[in-house]
Amino acid sequence: MEDKIISQAVIGRLPRYYRYLGDLKDSGIERISSQDLSKLMKVTASQIRQDFNNFGGFGQQGYGYNVEYLYNEIAKILGLHYKHNLIIVGAGNLGQALANYVNFERRGFIVKGVFDINPELHGKELRGVPVQPIENIEEFVKANDIDIAVLTIPKDGAVKTAEVLVRCNIRAIWNFAHVDLNVPDSIVVENVHLSDSLMKLSYGISKFDNSN
Amino acid sequence: MEDKIISQAVIGRLPRYYRYLGDLKDSGIERISSQDLSKLMKVTASQIRQDFNNFGGFGQQGYGYNVEYLYNEIAKILGLHYKHNLIIVGAGNLGQALANYVNFERRGFIVKGVFDINPELHGKELRGVPVQPIENIEEFVKANDIDIAVLTIPKDGAVKTAEVLVRCNIRAIWNFAHVDLNVPDSIVVENVHLSDSLMKLSYGISKFDNSN
Repeated sequence: MEDKIISQAVIGRLPRYYRYLGDLKDSGIERISSQDLSKLMKVTASQIRQDFNNFGGFGQQGYGYNVEYLYNEIAKILGLHYKHNLIIVGAGNLGQALANYVNFERRGFIVKGVFDINPELHGKELRGVPVQPIENIEEFVKANDIDIAVLTIPKDGAVKTAEVLVRCNIRAIWNFAHVDLNVPDSIVVENVHLSDSLMKLSYGISKFDNSN
Repeated sequence: MEDKIISQAVIGRLPRYYRYLGDLKDSGIERISSQDLSKLMKVTASQIRQDFNNFGGFGQQGYGYNVEYLYNEIAKILGLHYKHNLIIVGAGNLGQALANYVNFERRGFIVKGVFDINPELHGKELRGVPVQPIENIEEFVKANDIDIAVLTIPKDGAVKTAEVLVRCNIRAIWNFAHVDLNVPDSIVVENVHLSDSLMKLSYGISKFDNSN
């Protein structure tokens, strides 16, 4: 599996499969056919089979998929069986929202440190984790086995912080700043550009206006 | 243009063009060639030309694109020349972060109402907008020309609220709840599934582990 290149589109769909399978599992459903999963998720059964074939299939023909097995296998592919230590840079509303979101911790993403430029926030605790000055990032990341940095700060600060994080050999950046970060390819960057998302929504509304 | 079907992939790229052109405009740059834009954005020049050809080109051969003209044209395509009234359902950290984000207002997205199930928050103001009981949504949306509802509440509440919003003929839902909403096709839904994004990040880290 390591040698096989899986398309970004397939990877992008895995979390959604994982979410639906989790709901099925929580509802006590043990098996599901690709047809039923297809109806539930509103994608074609052939798409589901093709996606799963990238990972060797998972399927038992005629019996459908074992929900818990499939859920666990997708978790492994997504790397959710490992714990990841993370820091949040920016203790504003968005940083606080993420720090307080207990589901992330349940999935193995542990908030170890929170940093902010604002001295008034220093020492304030978010779920038991004190906010520290932004100057402490480099030392903290190196000393605490931090994999992931979450950037919830404005774009100028995000660009500067990314440079620090590159020096610390951070493995991944979850970037909420409204800017594309320029980091080596060995660092995984996942962007959440909220303004871009809102613009797509706005486009959708305009399109309906134009077509009516 | 109304009759032409533009692919979702092209639409998905427009906000990024808009962001880069805005930065260029703010830096006082008046013209840019597709080659220079290509280097800046790290996409091919032919991709840029193809994308813009969907909207009639915008280009003046040999002289490059007029930055401000292109910026304004993309804004029009994205519907950003209209103001949109919105409500935020869920006044927790994420709802507050969005309510306080001034850039949305600059782009014409005006927060008119905020709603929450928690009585302790009722009457609290977010940038001058008081938090109301969730029961008020239907009347408020109908009376205040609301286009967009932002859902920053857990999934069960989001599903119920979506039903109310459908009855009020809401035009668009910006959904942060960890669930896919089942609404008529005439309602634009843009999902921001933060957990899905974090899982993609986790996958990226695992992939590096496997390949090293």
